[in-house]
Amino acid sequence: MSPRGRRPVGADTRGEIVAAARIEFAAKGYDATSLRAIARRAGVDPALIHHYFSGKAALFATVMAIPIDPSVIVAGLLHTPREQIGAAMVRSFFAIWDQPPARERMQGLMRSAITNHEAGRMLREFLTGEVFTRVTAEMDARVPTVERPTSTPEIRGGLAAAQMVGVAIMRYVIEYGPVVDAGVEELVALLGPTLQTYVAPPPGS
Amino acid sequence: MSPRGRRPVGADTRGEIVAAARIEFAAKGYDATSLRAIARRAGVDPALIHHYFSGKAALFATVMAIPIDPSVIVAGLLHTPREQIGAAMVRSFFAIWDQPPARERMQGLMRSAITNHEAGRMLREFLTGEVFTRVTAEMDARVPTVERPTSTPEIRGGLAAAQMVGVAIMRYVIEYGPVVDAGVEELVALLGPTLQTYVAPPPGS
Repeated sequence: MSPRGRRPVGADTRGEIVAAARIEFAAKGYDATSLRAIARRAGVDPALIHHYFSGKAALFATVMAIPIDPSVIVAGLLHTPREQIGAAMVRSFFAIWDQPPARERMQGLMRSAITNHEAGRMLREFLTGEVFTRVTAEMDARVPTVERPTSTPEIRGGLAAAQMVGVAIMRYVIEYGPVVDAGVEELVALLGPTLQTYVAPPPGS
Repeated sequence: MSPRGRRPVGADTRGEIVAAARIEFAAKGYDATSLRAIARRAGVDPALIHHYFSGKAALFATVMAIPIDPSVIVAGLLHTPREQIGAAMVRSFFAIWDQPPARERMQGLMRSAITNHEAGRMLREFLTGEVFTRVTAEMDARVPTVERPTSTPEIRGGLAAAQMVGVAIMRYVIEYGPVVDAGVEELVALLGPTLQTYVAPPPGS
């Protein structure tokens, strides 16, 4: 590895950062991996990572071949009115995954998550900590404490994630015809209320 | 293979039926496999299969190492009042899967469903045709045509199956702590309304 700041011109710095991130995420999981450790392994200054990636979530998305920066999606969701968050999450999900080649990407993701303990752990930590549980906790924070659901954001976010992981498997991996053929609007109409119930049920319910 | 009725005493007939069924299900999927074809491959009389198994669903469950005859579970569900079916399905699910060693069985099931096209197809056909879509269609049949949901039983059953497949992955495969630690009653309280909405929403809704 080159010392910091002495990399040859034209080296594939971005590729080396991604390769280092892949090793770090697999070894330590999503939560425990720091950009500093990735930079150290790649032999670059930590600031250089921010030249290529908006942050840890975006770098993780690249490692997992997810085509969109999830932190941009989540930032959009956090600006959604609380009573529309379920439908908004379902729409964002299909905006990401209905782009080709979703099937190959989702198969790769699910195959590694299910056959490899470390890959499963990092996907789980990312999905819950950065997306589903995070959005759920933010929605809880918008209502008074006494009106929040009795179940924790962690379990409700986990069940919301479970619904969408299952839909992804049905639509992109094992390809159950009726779920493959369904239009996004029908899926939003059916799945939106489910996610709403988990992520942001009516206050005091 | 021995000719029919001429099998040596003490042969593992049941084991040979299961082995033949595994091959037939993998080759043709769940729907297109007949007990007659399994009997032919095993070299036994079709009637002998019924000596060991209550039917195709029970034989499939054995092949997939599912510890309970699903047709017994489904028969019980079909006697459940329509407005309680969601909670009843969730309870039945955990009655099957919370028995040890659920983790190994579910990992095996999911690994084969996701990495092997034929295994995915047979699990999908079984889950939808024998369980989720079947129960959904039966619940639809209990209300007048004009009061049935506009989405088909196939898509609603598919989304109910997706929810529970996702929960199984979270609880038994990638082991997301809050979903692993949750008690069955909390899961029934959260997931029951979701399944109810898909399988048997209020008539006319």
